[in-house]
Amino acid sequence: MSEELGITVKKEENFSEWYTEVILKAELADYAPTKGCMIIKPFGYAIWEKIQEIFNKMIKDEVKNVYFPLLIPERILKKEAEHIRPTSETIMYEYFSKWIDSWRDLPLRINQWCNIVRWETKSTKLFLRTREFLWQEGHTAHSTKEEADKEVMKRLLQYKELIEKYLAIPVLIGKKSEGEKFAGALYTTTLEALMPDGRALQMGTSHNLGQNFAKVFDIQFWTKEHKREYVWQTSWGITTRLIGALVMVHGDDKGLVLPPKISPIQVVIIPIYYNENEKRKVLEKAKEIKEKLKEKFEVELDDRDQYTPGFKFNYWELKGIPLRIEIGPKDLKEKTLVLARRDTLEKIKIKENELIEKVKELLEDVQESLFKKAKKFLEERIFEVKDCEEFKKRIENREGFVKIEWCSSLECEEKIKEEIGATCRLISFDEKPKGKKCLVCGKEAKVVAYFAKAY
Amino acid sequence: MSEELGITVKKEENFSEWYTEVILKAELADYAPTKGCMIIKPFGYAIWEKIQEIFNKMIKDEVKNVYFPLLIPERILKKEAEHIRPTSETIMYEYFSKWIDSWRDLPLRINQWCNIVRWETKSTKLFLRTREFLWQEGHTAHSTKEEADKEVMKRLLQYKELIEKYLAIPVLIGKKSEGEKFAGALYTTTLEALMPDGRALQMGTSHNLGQNFAKVFDIQFWTKEHKREYVWQTSWGITTRLIGALVMVHGDDKGLVLPPKISPIQVVIIPIYYNENEKRKVLEKAKEIKEKLKEKFEVELDDRDQYTPGFKFNYWELKGIPLRIEIGPKDLKEKTLVLARRDTLEKIKIKENELIEKVKELLEDVQESLFKKAKKFLEERIFEVKDCEEFKKRIENREGFVKIEWCSSLECEEKIKEEIGATCRLISFDEKPKGKKCLVCGKEAKVVAYFAKAY
Repeated sequence: MSEELGITVKKEENFSEWYTEVILKAELADYAPTKGCMIIKPFGYAIWEKIQEIFNKMIKDEVKNVYFPLLIPERILKKEAEHIRPTSETIMYEYFSKWIDSWRDLPLRINQWCNIVRWETKSTKLFLRTREFLWQEGHTAHSTKEEADKEVMKRLLQYKELIEKYLAIPVLIGKKSEGEKFAGALYTTTLEALMPDGRALQMGTSHNLGQNFAKVFDIQFWTKEHKREYVWQTSWGITTRLIGALVMVHGDDKGLVLPPKISPIQVVIIPIYYNENEKRKVLEKAKEIKEKLKEKFEVELDDRDQYTPGFKFNYWELKGIPLRIEIGPKDLKEKTLVLARRDTLEKIKIKENELIEKVKELLEDVQESLFKKAKKFLEERIFEVKDCEEFKKRIENREGFVKIEWCSSLECEEKIKEEIGATCRLISFDEKPKGKKCLVCGKEAKVVAYFAKAY
Repeated sequence: MSEELGITVKKEENFSEWYTEVILKAELADYAPTKGCMIIKPFGYAIWEKIQEIFNKMIKDEVKNVYFPLLIPERILKKEAEHIRPTSETIMYEYFSKWIDSWRDLPLRINQWCNIVRWETKSTKLFLRTREFLWQEGHTAHSTKEEADKEVMKRLLQYKELIEKYLAIPVLIGKKSEGEKFAGALYTTTLEALMPDGRALQMGTSHNLGQNFAKVFDIQFWTKEHKREYVWQTSWGITTRLIGALVMVHGDDKGLVLPPKISPIQVVIIPIYYNENEKRKVLEKAKEIKEKLKEKFEVELDDRDQYTPGFKFNYWELKGIPLRIEIGPKDLKEKTLVLARRDTLEKIKIKENELIEKVKELLEDVQESLFKKAKKFLEERIFEVKDCEEFKKRIENREGFVKIEWCSSLECEEKIKEEIGATCRLISFDEKPKGKKCLVCGKEAKVVAYFAKAY
């Protein structure tokens, strides 16, 4: 039973198959009958709901949620297609021009959580690239560029907090290059994480759209001085792709490993008994413990009679629940409990009266350990290279990020893409070139940039 | 300023225009450029989020949320179209047959909150009938009919609680007639409310699907006795239409009137001042009051400098906020506050130290009063008629529900539809015929049924 339940592929040996097996067996998602689409199953959707809850709480003081229709008339789509490119901005900004009259209506900040369909021609992969996915898209309008700049950075840093503090995935943040930025934007900022296979994954983006869309959709406002001006806009989004990153970064050969702060269940209690008399007593205690923990943690008691404790251990390990509590007849007698961490698989025997405190302590430690481990992995895989040969070698071997002092020209970017096989993931906000020439073309280096193979 | 803000049509005089004006001016929704679709604006969406929050809390102990794809292959659609009729059950039940293996997998209960597109050919109306709307659809599978019966009733009663206790709209519950039930169902249960124009509005439905879909989609399970059996299924849903009902039932000539338990904002504080010195002091006190209330209520301080208190009164009355707190220089001196109820427009002067207690009391009273008023309206509009002539007259005059002892035949139902212009809204669960003949066809009366004109 536990064999058909378990993961049959090792993460180190076949990363891509391991990834798909974990998602299917941990019941995060299933393939939909429509090619390239997926069904998000209860356990996967519960993680998405956690992400929604956390991010809503971060933005709701300023941003209001809305719902725009799925269907957009061709007329409006064309309006943008002629000027920029067709996305969901089209319908929203048609309404911005209607809703915004004067400076009193600014800033305008809306957000929607919805489904989006993009007919991908690249091969699809559960959570990472599907033809339909769920996302959040924030759209704001401001009276000055400075305000829009601030908004872009505020949302980027909120994403960073969500991803690092809750998902326990370290990210690099920065600006996109000319070749990688959102075509309609003044500039794009991004969060990039490194996956265990040495490829970068874009975790979210936040754009300053400048006045580009305002001019196409005629979004003007009356200033306090009674002048007509175009608004400055931003947009920013994250998708269900984040769940794919969670799987890849923390998972192991036994399945999913979830950071406590994003796990729909933090503690699972497994009662162990061998006869009816023991069953009664153990279940009674298990329920008592559940009640105690319920106040502070998301806790589940697996009292299903049809499965053995061994089956249940595997079942919940596969699902990545951060902490397991085992309770058997011996524990009743000794007033002890056994706690098992999902990340290290370590077992700790505690006294029953230390329960709350130890659970809290261990959950915090699991959260922190997962982040530290991933951060170490990331930091050890940022390489400064001495020449294009080393650049190419490190990219071909999927070693991680290559950091160079760079001219930032589109021409040079194209060359790196073609000859080295890497894309510019981001241009650092803080790091500045120290007078070197561009490693690739030999011209003056203007920025410090991170390149990698990407998903 | 306040004139262009206000509602220009009286509810009594032109109900339909009044309805649309309230929705547009209270900024619940806007017309989308795609015919028959709508944009749910922040204030309207916040009400939907409240509904989601309340209903999720009711069901989450047993039901898990999921997301199924928007796009369904023609192959699966046809499977059902040949047998029942094309809806979103098609894709879900294809997967039920994959996910359900034995009794251990039952009951299976899932739910999704999503958008749905139905190409309505009838004329559309904001919230009440749009080509795209948001809804919640629950789907469950059970091993026996009895369990499915219980599930149907449990969800129906949860809807009743949501609609009566939170939305303050009284409903009648019962079974649908043969002519009105969901075509694929064994039977359909429904909640029906009466709108101020004398028409009934279906507020939600809960179906026992029997084994009909299980046979089409081959959803079988191994029983404990190792036999193969078809599952028994239920489905149940409510939509954004509920927001339309809220507007119609409670709204008045000044705009929306929201029951406190469903209002995104329960209390709005309006500072009143005439010079800079007063402004400083009044705002300080207003902020202090906001902080005090924030712990227990959803509260907003309208400190926008560009609008007068009079404008703000109208603005928040239009939006239906249950309670307004006015605070001016005189109140500071006397340590008093003025509370204004949205439902009765009554003003109450209170002492500052009674604040929390009085706000709590008044909000409870507003909630209760709105429900009582609507309940009285409903109860006074249920008519037992002596003959078909009176039946027809009351329906033509849109007086409300006509209750009759009825044969329940499809033939008789069709006749009532054509000749009297009413549809059967529900068959009572509790009320039984007292030996009368069917009022319409003269055959034996088998049920007590409620008829009306419906949306």
